[in-house]
Amino acid sequence: MKILVLGLGLIGASIAKTLKKNTKHYVYGWNRTEAVTKKALTDGAIDATGSLDELLPEADVTIINFYTDAIIPFILENREKFKKGSIVTDSCGIKTKICRELEKENFDFTYIGAHPMAGREVSGYDASLPTLFDNASFICTPTNAKKSKTDTLILLAKEMGFKRTVVTTPEHHDEMIAFTSQIAHVLACSYVLSPLAPHHPGFSAGSYRDVSRVARINGEMWSELFIANKEPLINEIDDLVSNLIKFKQAIGEENREALVDLMARANKIKEEIG
Amino acid sequence: MKILVLGLGLIGASIAKTLKKNTKHYVYGWNRTEAVTKKALTDGAIDATGSLDELLPEADVTIINFYTDAIIPFILENREKFKKGSIVTDSCGIKTKICRELEKENFDFTYIGAHPMAGREVSGYDASLPTLFDNASFICTPTNAKKSKTDTLILLAKEMGFKRTVVTTPEHHDEMIAFTSQIAHVLACSYVLSPLAPHHPGFSAGSYRDVSRVARINGEMWSELFIANKEPLINEIDDLVSNLIKFKQAIGEENREALVDLMARANKIKEEIG
Repeated sequence: MKILVLGLGLIGASIAKTLKKNTKHYVYGWNRTEAVTKKALTDGAIDATGSLDELLPEADVTIINFYTDAIIPFILENREKFKKGSIVTDSCGIKTKICRELEKENFDFTYIGAHPMAGREVSGYDASLPTLFDNASFICTPTNAKKSKTDTLILLAKEMGFKRTVVTTPEHHDEMIAFTSQIAHVLACSYVLSPLAPHHPGFSAGSYRDVSRVARINGEMWSELFIANKEPLINEIDDLVSNLIKFKQAIGEENREALVDLMARANKIKEEIG
Repeated sequence: MKILVLGLGLIGASIAKTLKKNTKHYVYGWNRTEAVTKKALTDGAIDATGSLDELLPEADVTIINFYTDAIIPFILENREKFKKGSIVTDSCGIKTKICRELEKENFDFTYIGAHPMAGREVSGYDASLPTLFDNASFICTPTNAKKSKTDTLILLAKEMGFKRTVVTTPEHHDEMIAFTSQIAHVLACSYVLSPLAPHHPGFSAGSYRDVSRVARINGEMWSELFIANKEPLINEIDDLVSNLIKFKQAIGEENREALVDLMARANKIKEEIG
C-alpha cells in the first residue's frame, strides 16, 4: 500500500520510521515545516513527499498526526482530495469528540479513529524512534466503519509490530485513557508543583523520579486533550482526590488499620494486574 | 571497623552486601528469623553472627534496620550492651520522632539517625542487592552528636559508594521525605484505587507504569512511617489536592490558558531541576 503520514513530530515520524523498518509499504510523508520533511527524506524515514494536492489522492491509508483541534477541520477541508475507498485515520489521544463528529459525514473514504499508545517526555521529529511502538497497544474506534476496513488497519498495526491491538468504542477508549494516561499526567504535574519540588536533590530516589517523570510535558498539546475529554477526566480527578482524602483522614486519626487496608488493596491491584 | 547490621531484610542485607563489596570492614549480621542470618552467612553477605549479647559490645558501628516503632525501644532496652564510644545508627525513613527522643538520653555511645535513600517494590532478604545504593543519597541527622562521630559515619557512607551524602536536621529531612517519597507512595496507591485500574491492560503505556510503580507497597511498614510523619505528610497531601483542584477547575471551565500555565510551571521544574 501507499501510506501517507501527515505531521512528522514525535508520533508521526515514529510511525513513518516503524513503517519503513517493519513493513514493505511505500511511505509518503508531509509536514507543515518543510525542513522537517527534508530531514525525514534524508534519514530514510519516508520514501517521498509532495504537496497535499499530490499526496492525498494517492494514499491508500492516510495517518493524520496533528493536535486534537486541527484534525476535524483538516479532514473536512480536504474531504474531496482523499483517495476514494481509502482509509483515513489519526493518532490523537482522545476519540469520542472526533469520531462521533466525523461519523455523521458521508465520505468517499473511510475514517477510522485510532490511538497508537506511546509517548516520550520529549517531542518533535528529533525525538522520534523506529522502536517507539514495540511494546505498545494500537487502539482503534471504528464506530460505523466497515469491518473490512477496520481489519485492514488492524493488520497494518500488527505488521508494524504493535504488541497488542484493541478495537473498542470511542467512549470506552476515552474513559480508559482518562485513567491510564491523562490523570497520570495531571497528577505528575500537580506533584511537582509542590513548593518543596525545587529542593528535592539529595532527598529523592526512584519514587520521585518515576512519579514525576511525565511532568515533563507539552502543555500546548495536553491542554487540548484534557479539555476534549473533560467529563471522564474530571471523574478521574474526583476519584483520585477522594482516595487522597481517605489517606489524609487515616493518617490524621493515626488509624493504622485503615492505612494498611488502603495499601493492601492498592498492592493487590499492582501484584495481580500490574 | 567491626560493623554490625541488625535486621537483614531488603535494606539491612543490601547494606551488609554493600559493605562486603565496597569496604574492608568486618561485617556482623543478625536477624530475628535465624534462617535468614544463616542464608546471609552462606551467601557471604556477612562475615559472622552471634547473639545480641555477644555482638552489641563488639561493634564499632551498629546499623539498625527495623520498622519505625521498634527502633527506640530496642536502643533503650539494650543501652548497656552497645560498645562504649561506638556509633549506633538506623536506616528508618523518618527521623524527627526518633532523633528528638533519643537526644534526650545520656548514652555511652553516640546515636546518629540516618536514612540510606533507596528502595524496591519488593522486600525481604531475597530482594537485597549489593548495588541498591549505587546512585543513592545517604542522609544523616546528627542533632547533638559530636562532629568527629558524624564524620566517621559520613566517611563510611562514602566508602560504601553512596553517590551523595547530606547532613541536615531531622525536621528538614522529614519535610523533604514527605514530598519526595511518602506522598509519591500515597498518590501511587490513590491512583490505582480508581475503579478503572483493573481494566487498564491494553489501554496503558509508560505513564501508567511509572506513576503506579510504587503502589506495589509494604503497607505494614509504610503505615508506621506515614503516622510517624503525620504533619509534613498531611501538608503535602493538602498541596497535592489543591493543585489537582486547580487542574479540575481549569478543565471544567475549558480554560486552556490556565492549563498551559500550570503545565508550563511543572515542565520548567522537571527541565531545570529534574
